[in-house]
Amino acid sequence: MTTEKMIIEIKEWLKEAAGYIKVSFTNEIEISQKSNRKDLVTNIDEEIQTFFINKINEHYPGDRILAEEKGFNTIDSLTGRVWIIDPIDGTMNFVMEQENFCIMMAVFEEGVGQLGFIYDVMKDELYWGGKNLGVFLNDQKLKAPKNSPLSEGLLGMNAYMYGENLYCAKEIGHASMGVRVSGCAGIELIAMLKGNHIGYVSNLSPWDYAAGLVLIEEFGFKYSNIDGSPLSFAKREYFLAATAKAYEEIQKTYIFELE
Amino acid sequence: MTTEKMIIEIKEWLKEAAGYIKVSFTNEIEISQKSNRKDLVTNIDEEIQTFFINKINEHYPGDRILAEEKGFNTIDSLTGRVWIIDPIDGTMNFVMEQENFCIMMAVFEEGVGQLGFIYDVMKDELYWGGKNLGVFLNDQKLKAPKNSPLSEGLLGMNAYMYGENLYCAKEIGHASMGVRVSGCAGIELIAMLKGNHIGYVSNLSPWDYAAGLVLIEEFGFKYSNIDGSPLSFAKREYFLAATAKAYEEIQKTYIFELE
Repeated sequence: MTTEKMIIEIKEWLKEAAGYIKVSFTNEIEISQKSNRKDLVTNIDEEIQTFFINKINEHYPGDRILAEEKGFNTIDSLTGRVWIIDPIDGTMNFVMEQENFCIMMAVFEEGVGQLGFIYDVMKDELYWGGKNLGVFLNDQKLKAPKNSPLSEGLLGMNAYMYGENLYCAKEIGHASMGVRVSGCAGIELIAMLKGNHIGYVSNLSPWDYAAGLVLIEEFGFKYSNIDGSPLSFAKREYFLAATAKAYEEIQKTYIFELE
Repeated sequence: MTTEKMIIEIKEWLKEAAGYIKVSFTNEIEISQKSNRKDLVTNIDEEIQTFFINKINEHYPGDRILAEEKGFNTIDSLTGRVWIIDPIDGTMNFVMEQENFCIMMAVFEEGVGQLGFIYDVMKDELYWGGKNLGVFLNDQKLKAPKNSPLSEGLLGMNAYMYGENLYCAKEIGHASMGVRVSGCAGIELIAMLKGNHIGYVSNLSPWDYAAGLVLIEEFGFKYSNIDGSPLSFAKREYFLAATAKAYEEIQKTYIFELE
């Protein structure tokens, strides 16, 4: 069971983590490469992750954790209560821009998303909500965006998929009003919640989408692996989320053709 | 001659226009297509342009004007004093996102940029400056970003050029730390001024780059038609701006190969 108390606690942790991140910009950040020169991690990603893990272990002992950085990035199943965390989503932007990154946290129970939090730290905008709770920006309840078709909206896009036209990403982009590339899943999912974008095509790990799924589901968006199968929560995979209308169009017109 | 008084006046006009734009979101905006379904203009673009033209005619009679919307979008030469205006740069974002658009204004004399203003209306961030004056964000003087090489920075990109690999845009993007697509030249030029991005590859008209050139030149960035020739101020053309190091690398490695 998630509770009002849990929501209040998570918000406090997020604000504390955000304060730590902002102070970190005055110090030298330690940057390391993971799988390649564009896949970065910093001491701040790791410290923020440890901060959240300690909080969860203290307040919710026995809960399990799936998180981006080392030691926590696999989980055998989603049974019980699982916290899914991206301490800094958009690490490249964090390093290069010192903005356009998010903290993301989700609480799942028996595989079902219960709570989601996407925090745009530098704008101090916390998008949060939960199953049957609605979606909020800070203290203000948001309205669900219009169910627009593909031809009437902007589409968040992974640059590599667009450049290589994976899963017809380029054709899908051309059929929309235009593609945007922010380099941060949280920023893209926020753009959907605000009604700025009708969808998002990318290549994501569970911590990149878990919090967002809870929120976009509240607003009636559709999502899946881009091939139409359920998201696995087990590995990096091609991802599609969009308004119900745009999702159906993309599946029927572009993905079905591939099969 | 540009003067302190001119700077103060332009700032007042920009603030007045921004106020008008923000109020416009409470009304129905009239949207029309120009050359195609993704090339939009609204009544607000046109009203803001007329507002500026009236101000210039009143305060600086005899000056000439080059501006995006109808009646002012060509000029026979840059002799004398010329105002170059984009009333809403990023009209698609203005319509779809109600953010991530700019007002841009430049003052040129005998073909030389003297003053430049890029105003991110929704963030209330006015980047401005002039030849030998430096670059400011609102009232704060900015420092020139580091002269980073291509491999060490993010690159603003036009999605079409990237998808079609025009002028090796895809290879150039891969050699950088990553590409970003905002859909707004002003937002991209601001990202360079802040040191967030090392460069910008796009397809732009004079009103898209005039204000930005004055500012990035103050900071030592290089710019030209992407083929290395001077920008014409006469038509839409492929555009490259980058740190001196990244500009030289792009010219030598990617553009020279095309010849």
